[in-house]
Amino acid sequence: MKMRSDCPIACTLDLIGDRWTLLILRGLFIGKRRYGELLEMQENISTNILASRLSQLIDNGLIDRRAYSERPLRYEYRLTEKGADLLGVLQEMTRWAHKHLPETKTPPKSFISASSEQFYPH
Amino acid sequence: MKMRSDCPIACTLDLIGDRWTLLILRGLFIGKRRYGELLEMQENISTNILASRLSQLIDNGLIDRRAYSERPLRYEYRLTEKGADLLGVLQEMTRWAHKHLPETKTPPKSFISASSEQFYPH
Repeated sequence: MKMRSDCPIACTLDLIGDRWTLLILRGLFIGKRRYGELLEMQENISTNILASRLSQLIDNGLIDRRAYSERPLRYEYRLTEKGADLLGVLQEMTRWAHKHLPETKTPPKSFISASSEQFYPH
Repeated sequence: MKMRSDCPIACTLDLIGDRWTLLILRGLFIGKRRYGELLEMQENISTNILASRLSQLIDNGLIDRRAYSERPLRYEYRLTEKGADLLGVLQEMTRWAHKHLPETKTPPKSFISASSEQFYPH
């Protein structure tokens, strides 16, 4: 992965700075594990974007996958420690939206008060 | 602005979910105010992306601008309370990068420990 600079914010955005990647992580944080489950998000992610972002997330070490079926071959996706530690970014966005975007729904307290350790090891 | 859903994370990403918007806010947090100063970032933002993102930031209420010169007409950009409150998101990204992206530089403590109130009113 080519980084634009050595700024921690820029490098983080090189990995997650798009409209979809953090929504896929959101799905994993709320317990979705399979491609079909992740595809069902209300924001209507397309199959090609979901597949490409899952590949990038694996390449960047934010998630891993393990086969839960051999025939046909099917994978479950899981947060790594590196991926789970992005929970704080999602929580800060949620707090910000709760204050400044009144049209958004209130998130469950369990999400706001969660700690990333709850999501790994598996 | 059309939002994809009522999820606070998705709505936040509708506003700042790209590779450049938070880098422009980073510039404002570290004291840059003018178009030419914001353009100088080490990640080489293009003039058309900078101009379009500044317009979107204004439209979404995250920054405002005031003329500092009438002839030629020139503007300074400033964080609003709504924009300054995104400091926590940037700080979380910085903390995450410091832990998981060892190739990034250590940010100044003054940034990590800042509070958004320091950045408004002006």
